[in-house]
Formats: sequence, structure tokens, C-alpha cells
Amino acid sequence: MQIDGRTELIAHLGYPTESFRAPLIYNPYFESAGINAAVVPMGCRTESFGDVLRAFFALENARGALITMPHKVSVLALLDRVSAVATVAGACNAVRRDADGRLVGDMFDGEGFVRALRRQGFEPRAATALVVGSGGVGSAIAASLAAAGSSRIALFDADSGAVEALAARLRSHHPGVTVSTGSNDPAGFDLVVNATPLGMHPADPLPIDVRRLSPRALAADVILRTEETGFLVAARERGCRVQPGIDMLFEMIPAYLEFFGFATTTPDILRDVARLPR
Amino acid sequence: MQIDGRTELIAHLGYPTESFRAPLIYNPYFESAGINAAVVPMGCRTESFGDVLRAFFALENARGALITMPHKVSVLALLDRVSAVATVAGACNAVRRDADGRLVGDMFDGEGFVRALRRQGFEPRAATALVVGSGGVGSAIAASLAAAGSSRIALFDADSGAVEALAARLRSHHPGVTVSTGSNDPAGFDLVVNATPLGMHPADPLPIDVRRLSPRALAADVILRTEETGFLVAARERGCRVQPGIDMLFEMIPAYLEFFGFATTTPDILRDVARLPR
Repeated sequence: MQIDGRTELIAHLGYPTESFRAPLIYNPYFESAGINAAVVPMGCRTESFGDVLRAFFALENARGALITMPHKVSVLALLDRVSAVATVAGACNAVRRDADGRLVGDMFDGEGFVRALRRQGFEPRAATALVVGSGGVGSAIAASLAAAGSSRIALFDADSGAVEALAARLRSHHPGVTVSTGSNDPAGFDLVVNATPLGMHPADPLPIDVRRLSPRALAADVILRTEETGFLVAARERGCRVQPGIDMLFEMIPAYLEFFGFATTTPDILRDVARLPR
Repeated sequence: MQIDGRTELIAHLGYPTESFRAPLIYNPYFESAGINAAVVPMGCRTESFGDVLRAFFALENARGALITMPHKVSVLALLDRVSAVATVAGACNAVRRDADGRLVGDMFDGEGFVRALRRQGFEPRAATALVVGSGGVGSAIAASLAAAGSSRIALFDADSGAVEALAARLRSHHPGVTVSTGSNDPAGFDLVVNATPLGMHPADPLPIDVRRLSPRALAADVILRTEETGFLVAARERGCRVQPGIDMLFEMIPAYLEFFGFATTTPDILRDVARLPR
């Protein structure tokens, strides 16, 4: 890639920055597609985040911002408009400045998850889902499943405050969806999602009791560190279809690119050019 | 070059950004030297400059800033420490944040000019110089010639306010240097510098009467657009040694890199890897 005086910037705001993946996916794609834009990491602590966000969007060549930890929740209060999905998820990780000068926020992590489901032939409409983990990514997935028309969503998290707050937002925005909390029993669900950090390390326990998983269920993970976590291995042994976290990652990026006003692309093109560490 | 979560940033702040050269010189050098840093253009208008500068230096991976038009003068009021050369030049185009958190500014355009002189065997100490043009670059050159010990500096500019203000700063900081204003007659000077925009376009008039130039003088230009301006061609025909603007450019960059805390490099290495448009 070559940066010059006409390069548009996408700020990647978070702290710490060392493990940022976006520059390693977006920038090779921009280069391959002949787009003069760059995702640039900006290590930003909590106390300076508001000033940095405003100053960045004062730049003439600001194209957008990717927002990550620890700012995904606090950014909501700094925006002029927030999408319904981001409101239900309670978090936002993409911001752009519209022509009227307003800062607009959205969240496509859950959208990427739903796109990945559909790509392998799983239709979330009218499906039942257990989402284990009500942090940022679990909330985003639950919000997008509800928006996609899932009939029943069960939430489970050790942090009962987080899970009940998410359940309340889901019920408020999606009264047609049955929302339950308090159990991580996967029995009877069409879709079971691990949205906890369990599986980052080989010695981690499984997030659910896999023996209770229906062989007809689809088991999905959000862990990116390994292609197939212990949860997915065990689910596959039960006969389940599985969806690794990386599928969600590559499916969400076209949605973010469209949000920033770039042309549509495909997950396959992104996978081909990405330079993720192995 | 590859940007990742460990990339340090050098903001290139100015407006408009389209003609920025620094990303095309610094970034190929960083790549060739294995340095994980990037010069990133940030198009910044006057009204947001202060906020942008402060917000940028709040970033954990801010390594420094290059400041260009229209902020090279106004930035002085935003800094905690300014070098003597930048004070005399009345402009600053490099800012870093020191370990104590203070923003420190300096200016190495004139230093690059003096290094280029010395590289071709011209010693500015005790020399006499005519500097035509008292804008940013002319002021920087005059400041560095005075710091290098030139005995006499004549300044000329159609803007008498600019030239008298520069003359006053030079006399105040360098009482040993004879400073005169009001004439662009090159007769008798060891060094004659064109620091005006004349020469950007082929039809431009010459900045001085070349027939009055001593054949023993060195004629230097700051114009980057062409390797040899009409002024330099005419001076060469008089028998003068000449110094094109590009020499100053490549000589100054090692000084900027050192200011930002990078290892010393050479103009030759920078020339080899730069991707300037032809």
C-alpha cells in the first residue's frame, strides 16, 4: 500500500492496539482494490476518547472510525444518531460523519454473524437460539438474531446485570421475540452460540454441556484465535454443523465497508488478501 | 509497508493535503529500514488545528507531527518549548511530545539547506548571503545561515512587513550578523538563494538580475517542481555552482527523523527509496 496526500483515513480507535486485526484485513483489501484509504491504529485511552473522536472527524480526509475496546459502549453517548441494532446491542463499533455533519454509529458484528449463518444455509428467521455470553459480541449477535426474526432467544452470562440489561433491550425493541435468561442448557435450540472468551486457551472448560446439544443444531463460536475451538470440535463430534469465529469476521467486513461508503465486496476476496498472523 | 496494531504515527497536518510529499519519502524509508511507523496525512483546517494537534498527541502511538501550511506559524503558540531556530524563523514544522508530556517544536528546513551547502563544499560560516523571499522557507534558511555563522545576510521580499519582522528576529538573536533589507542585488554575495515561488512555472520571471551574480557565488533554489529552475540554469551559465531545491529536501529529512527519535540515516538512502512523482 502507498499512503499519499489523497489517502482517506479510517481511524481504528482503542487501547491497547497491539492485537488489532482490522489494519491487516482492510488495508490489503484497499490495496488490492485500488482504493486510496487506510485503516490507522490510534491508541486512545478513556480520558481522551471524546476529544480524539471529535478531532478525528474534523479532518478533511476522515472517512470513518472503527471503535473497539474500551470505547464501544461509551461512544454511544457521543453520537448524533445510532442504529437500532447498535442501540439493542448497547455498543457501537463503526462511526461515520454524514453530509449534514452528524456523527452516525452502527454495529455490524451481529450482521456478520447472521450473514455467515445464511451462507451455510441456516435461516435465523423463526429459529430458536441460545447465546452464551452477554458482552459486546454476544449482545451484537443477539440483537441481529432478533432483527432477523428469531422466535426465541435465550441469554446466559455469569454477569447477571449485563444479561438482564440486554434482555430488557431486546424485549423492548423486539416484543415478538421470546427472551429468556438464567440457563445455558442447549437442549432444544436450533442455534447455540459461544460468545464468551472460553476457548481462547486450550485448557478452557466448554461454555455449555455439549451432551445436551441437539445433533440437528448449528454450533457457532466467536473465538478467532483458533479455527476450531474445543466447543466446535465437541459439537462436530455430536453431529452438529459448526461455524468458526473467523466466518463472522470476514462476513461483517463488507457491511462495514458499505457503511463507510465503499463499494460492496465479498468475504472471499477479503480472505484471499488478508495478512492475519498465523 | 504494512500497518498493524504496533505502528507508530507521524501526523502530517495541513490543508490541502493533495500535494504532500512527506508520506512518499518517509514511508518507503521506514519500510526499507524495518521501522514500524507511518506518516499519515491529516487534512486539517485552521479552526480545528489546535484541537487536532492536542488530540493527536493524546494518542499512545503518536510519534510526532509534521506541520505544514497553513499551520506552520500558528502552531508556535500551542507549544511548550520552541527551538531557537524555529523562533527566529517564526515557524515550526515538527512537533514531538517529550517524556515530561510537553510539546516541543523545531524547524529543520534551514538545517537541511545548510547541510546541502556543506555537502558540496560550501561553508556558510563567515559567508555573505542574499536570501530572496521571506516566507516560511526563506525565513528558515536565513535563521539557519545565521546560526551557522554567516557574517552578513541580505533579505528581500515584496512583503516589507514579513522581511522587516524577520530582520528584527535575526538581529535580536544573532547580534554578530549584519542584516540588511531592501535590495535583491546579488552583486558581491557568496551565496544567493531563491526562496520565492518564482520558478514553479516555466514562464516565471527570474527572482534576481543574474547578470549581477558573481561567477564565484553559489546559487541555490528551493523550488522542488523541477530539478533545475530558470534561475539555476542562468546561474550555471554564469559559471556559478548551483544547488537545487531537492537537495535541501533530502538533507533535512535525517534531521527530522532524529528529532522524532529515529536512528540517523543519509540523504542518499532516502533518495533511493523515495516515490516522488515525476
